[in-house]
Amino acid sequence: MNAQLERLKQCLGEIDDLSKAAAVLDWDQQTYMPPGGLEARSWQLATLQRLAHEKFTSKEMGDLLQETLLHIESLDADSDDGRLVRVMWREYQKQIKIPPSLVAEFARKTSIAHQVWEDARAEKRFAAFQPILEDLVQLIRRKAENLGYTDHIYDPLLDMYEPEMKTADVERTFKELKTAIIALIQGIAQHRDAVRDTVFWQEFDVQQQWLFGIEVLQQMGYDFERGRQDKSAHPFTTNFSPDDVRITTRLYPNMFASALFSSIHEGGHALYEQGVSRTLLRTPICTGASMAVHESQSRFWENVIGRSRAFWTYFLPRLQTYFPAQLRDVSLENFYRSINVVRPDFIRVEADEVTYNLHIFLRFELETALIAGDIEVKDLPMLWNQKMQKYLGVTPPDDAMGVLQDVHWSAGLFGYFPTYALGNVLSMQFCACMKRDLPEFDEMIARGEFTPILAWLRENIHKHGSKFTPTELVRRVTGEAMNPKAYIAYLHGKYGELYGI
Amino acid sequence: MNAQLERLKQCLGEIDDLSKAAAVLDWDQQTYMPPGGLEARSWQLATLQRLAHEKFTSKEMGDLLQETLLHIESLDADSDDGRLVRVMWREYQKQIKIPPSLVAEFARKTSIAHQVWEDARAEKRFAAFQPILEDLVQLIRRKAENLGYTDHIYDPLLDMYEPEMKTADVERTFKELKTAIIALIQGIAQHRDAVRDTVFWQEFDVQQQWLFGIEVLQQMGYDFERGRQDKSAHPFTTNFSPDDVRITTRLYPNMFASALFSSIHEGGHALYEQGVSRTLLRTPICTGASMAVHESQSRFWENVIGRSRAFWTYFLPRLQTYFPAQLRDVSLENFYRSINVVRPDFIRVEADEVTYNLHIFLRFELETALIAGDIEVKDLPMLWNQKMQKYLGVTPPDDAMGVLQDVHWSAGLFGYFPTYALGNVLSMQFCACMKRDLPEFDEMIARGEFTPILAWLRENIHKHGSKFTPTELVRRVTGEAMNPKAYIAYLHGKYGELYGI
Repeated sequence: MNAQLERLKQCLGEIDDLSKAAAVLDWDQQTYMPPGGLEARSWQLATLQRLAHEKFTSKEMGDLLQETLLHIESLDADSDDGRLVRVMWREYQKQIKIPPSLVAEFARKTSIAHQVWEDARAEKRFAAFQPILEDLVQLIRRKAENLGYTDHIYDPLLDMYEPEMKTADVERTFKELKTAIIALIQGIAQHRDAVRDTVFWQEFDVQQQWLFGIEVLQQMGYDFERGRQDKSAHPFTTNFSPDDVRITTRLYPNMFASALFSSIHEGGHALYEQGVSRTLLRTPICTGASMAVHESQSRFWENVIGRSRAFWTYFLPRLQTYFPAQLRDVSLENFYRSINVVRPDFIRVEADEVTYNLHIFLRFELETALIAGDIEVKDLPMLWNQKMQKYLGVTPPDDAMGVLQDVHWSAGLFGYFPTYALGNVLSMQFCACMKRDLPEFDEMIARGEFTPILAWLRENIHKHGSKFTPTELVRRVTGEAMNPKAYIAYLHGKYGELYGI
Repeated sequence: MNAQLERLKQCLGEIDDLSKAAAVLDWDQQTYMPPGGLEARSWQLATLQRLAHEKFTSKEMGDLLQETLLHIESLDADSDDGRLVRVMWREYQKQIKIPPSLVAEFARKTSIAHQVWEDARAEKRFAAFQPILEDLVQLIRRKAENLGYTDHIYDPLLDMYEPEMKTADVERTFKELKTAIIALIQGIAQHRDAVRDTVFWQEFDVQQQWLFGIEVLQQMGYDFERGRQDKSAHPFTTNFSPDDVRITTRLYPNMFASALFSSIHEGGHALYEQGVSRTLLRTPICTGASMAVHESQSRFWENVIGRSRAFWTYFLPRLQTYFPAQLRDVSLENFYRSINVVRPDFIRVEADEVTYNLHIFLRFELETALIAGDIEVKDLPMLWNQKMQKYLGVTPPDDAMGVLQDVHWSAGLFGYFPTYALGNVLSMQFCACMKRDLPEFDEMIARGEFTPILAWLRENIHKHGSKFTPTELVRRVTGEAMNPKAYIAYLHGKYGELYGI
């Protein structure tokens, strides 16, 4: 048993090395790679990913997993090794169902699709993207059929990002959220002038923005000895081990809030990865439990903490030293209100905390219908704009501001979008528990003390990596299943007060 | 045949992808990786390198090479495919002689040795490095025995960096060089005050240094769309394809010449890699022919061009716009003399054009004797200092300034040092041919016109990658074997005039 377990861990270690090497290449591509490097980089990434997949779906891996599984009873069910074997067995059973030819075709098609999408978006013309998106939808449907399902063809896709979550669960949660959020937005619409953000209609030096962002990240507890921040076109977090977790941001002189909250958001993801137990080093479970749990961390820091009165009680005086000319006269209350303006608009990534979720419902509804075959790719722009009007009361002026705005579908990421809103839900469900353990939650934040908060997250969530499924983790932490009540109460409380509803 | 050749190229392509991915990880480690990343990075690199070695020495690779070799007669001997098969067969026969256990032990030992060497150098204490260096020498001797040799145990080591070159060839060339250079240095010693570099005893803003370096690199023809410069502790060049060739430099306010000539040096390496024919893309021969040929390019740009009167005729007025306060009053002649001061000193990488070679002779003599078992590791510091006194008339104050100064031995690089001086030799041998084809050589440089020079290098040297062995390449370009006459004449001419000998 021990010899087999060691051999299994050695094989998984090599697979992890290949995946992490690919992550380094991807980080480089998005930060420093010169334009000429693209062609060779795509070969290198394809080879690394193919080798990792080949090794993971090999007969040796199957045998090792089965043999160790037979003897796993001797291990504590929650031990690192016991969990590793079970989680990998689950993943192995999924991966072997996808034929290598489909993996290769998918990789080839998505690498082309990315460029087609970029060009189509630049031209603001969905028709240019439509044919390859139709191909991708067919491939994704084949993938879903290969993976198999009982209730909904979208289930196995969702399961790739959110293990054990079902389409019906998401629908139930989103239904409850939607009712509450639409009611809230209707209330806000009647008090639209209560909150203004004119303070941000100024220029903010990008170097000063950068420095303030670093200060905030350090204060949050992000360890720059085990990470770094760089610039990229789209902010992201990546990790090559818990000791090398990197984030990126983008800076605009006339969009101060955008860069700052993106740094805090990515910092939230990074704290999660830096906090995974080092006993899981060099295993594929040495990373966050799921996309929704990951988003719960980033959104917690970005919104629950970063857009709170308490946070700016501490940080506004600090920020004023970076931008004395722009911010000398702003009051805490005015600043707090400014960063919490609710304003229905076209672009998801720039959306406020309340309307953000509507962008997700729209995408989830469209992609489940698309995969189920209930709607056609060609009708997406029309359906997109109809839903935008219905949920947000606005109609995108063109496809670039509408259906073409997100990279996900071009990368074949179907099943990913709902995790953003589920992350919002979890952020407050976790926070409610945290506040019971840390009754001085707001006071600590107002003093700039994040250590107890981070310690709580590390102990309850971060350290476990993906030893537990999200369902298991949520139950361990909160004692119940995923539940949007706390998040709804939070939104209604915060924005009801802000807008005087 | 075609199917086998295609399969061979596909396998070699994958091996190349793995090697290039490792190169990206190494670049990242030396430029941006946070300190915490080291442990995981060493696993990732070990896995990539092991997989590349496993694939290259696999039975499938041997079979494919043998089968394609049988049919290679149908291909033009100089065709890309014909050369690829022959060069890879030669390399395969070498690699399969090294048992995997030795490869693994060597990798493990050198990764430890690097840290031991760094610590020993910091403590200035060779004794701390001695035990692991003794182990490394034993491993290297085993490697040489495995590879096999007829004349000298150092031959197979040299062959790794300089294919087909023999220890006896190096000894013959170095003997001729040594006599000439020692005579030159004796002459210079009697006119020591003829050349001074007090102009560099000032502070030069590092950001301005950086910008001037970029201007020089652009003017040389380095393509920043297919490369970039970053900062690292030790300057180096790396490439992930001819379309992604990166260099690094280091900048010191009080060592202007050091940073600039290091940028030009690495730029010379980079122009070589950027100039390899794109028909060789994604093959292991899509890179420079050998270390000596590579150094011939870097030293050509650094010294023959970069330290010439003509170069500064063009660039001094440009440089004065970057540093008006420091350089307003310097004359071309004074500046030219300043960058060509000959001053025997302890450190190889800071040595001038003339004494540099003596540092190499010393290392070559010591490492051949060490590998042959004629001297012992424990006697290295004493022997080092004796030779320093004999060749350069100086004795290092401590081991850090002496035997511990270079990283090479800690990395197991035995056989590498001589290529630096051989590169000097080749730089002038190639240059003599170039000048026949480009009679206006100096005038072009003085006008800042480097395009014809780069075009000549591309056509005669760069584009071939490693299709030809260095011996073949030198004969193709110059019509003769390696010959130090042109280089000796160059040194005597240039420094005889400078020092009025």
